Amino acid sequence: MNLSTTTILIIKTIVLRFLFSPATAQASSCSIKEFPVVRNISELPQDDYELGGLSHITIAGSLMHGMKEIEIWLHTYSPGAHTPIHRHSCEEVFVVLKGSGTLFLASSMHEKYPGKPQEFHIFPNSTFYIPVNDAHQVWNTNDHEDLQVLVIISQPPIRAFVYEDWFMPHAAAKLAFPIPWDARCLEAPFKYEL
Amino acid sequence: MNLSTTTILIIKTIVLRFLFSPATAQASSCSIKEFPVVRNISELPQDDYELGGLSHITIAGSLMHGMKEIEIWLHTYSPGAHTPIHRHSCEEVFVVLKGSGTLFLASSMHEKYPGKPQEFHIFPNSTFYIPVNDAHQVWNTNDHEDLQVLVIISQPPIRAFVYEDWFMPHAAAKLAFPIPWDARCLEAPFKYEL
Repeated sequence: MNLSTTTILIIKTIVLRFLFSPATAQASSCSIKEFPVVRNISELPQDDYELGGLSHITIAGSLMHGMKEIEIWLHTYSPGAHTPIHRHSCEEVFVVLKGSGTLFLASSMHEKYPGKPQEFHIFPNSTFYIPVNDAHQVWNTNDHEDLQVLVIISQPPIRAFVYEDWFMPHAAAKLAFPIPWDARCLEAPFKYEL
Repeated sequence: MNLSTTTILIIKTIVLRFLFSPATAQASSCSIKEFPVVRNISELPQDDYELGGLSHITIAGSLMHGMKEIEIWLHTYSPGAHTPIHRHSCEEVFVVLKGSGTLFLASSMHEKYPGKPQEFHIFPNSTFYIPVNDAHQVWNTNDHEDLQVLVIISQPPIRAFVYEDWFMPHAAAKLAFPIPWDARCLEAPFKYEL
């Protein structure tokens, strides 16, 4: 191999790494510097983040777009898909755009564990607010249709505490930070616990 | 008129006042104590607040529902309707649900007045963020269709500063607080200036 061939090989390797490196792809979808004022939501990065049945889009985000006080997601849950049981100290409002499902909500922050949750039917053009620190879970219980919701949170990026079940003590719930879409922007691995 | 007739008249007057008093109607739509967890947006109070061509619904509000960090409105502008030129120090994100129009945006908070704004086409399933303190105006420039947007703000209730035109000095912009839907909850008159 002469020098010229070696040089070409090095250049090829660099180009291939640049094109296919996850870090590069992540940086390009998490830049807060270059994005148009008006954006087409259907052209924004969308991913399932290996969460099984969830499609996530950050419409306006802290790490992705430089928001400081509010963050907005578009979540689409396939039939049977659901969030984990979790709580957080930020405010959160849902607006249901399509489909239907069930909100499970345990208002028990003064007890030792969430306990059996209340169930609420959610439907197109409905809205609901999650009281701060209440354990909750959103579930697409409709076998025939995706559930699509806008999710608005305060205090981004979100720090959620995840429960294995409704009877797990509050103190044992595991911190999920950064959550998968923020992990990609931070270029840090997703962790369930500090 | 005997005592009995007088008593009946007084009672009638009290009942009529109770039924038709704007203050009573306002209080009932602004209570933060009694509203269901899941609410049907199409059944929430809707009003034009005499603003000409705007239909406003508070989906989740500070004064109406006890939100502390975020507030969400559903705004429908008839053809030709528009917001005033205004600025505010809270974050604000729009999600366009239906229709189209124009965002006028003057990023000139370091100048003496907004100046000629940039124009951006807004369309269904688009989103845009208003940089903090930038003067802006949203206009339904489509003659044939309503423009419907979700508006998300931080730091509710909103305090906006309103300009008569794009060349009015920032320092002369008039404080609009409370804005009409908050004024109704505060049972205070809408004022354009302190």
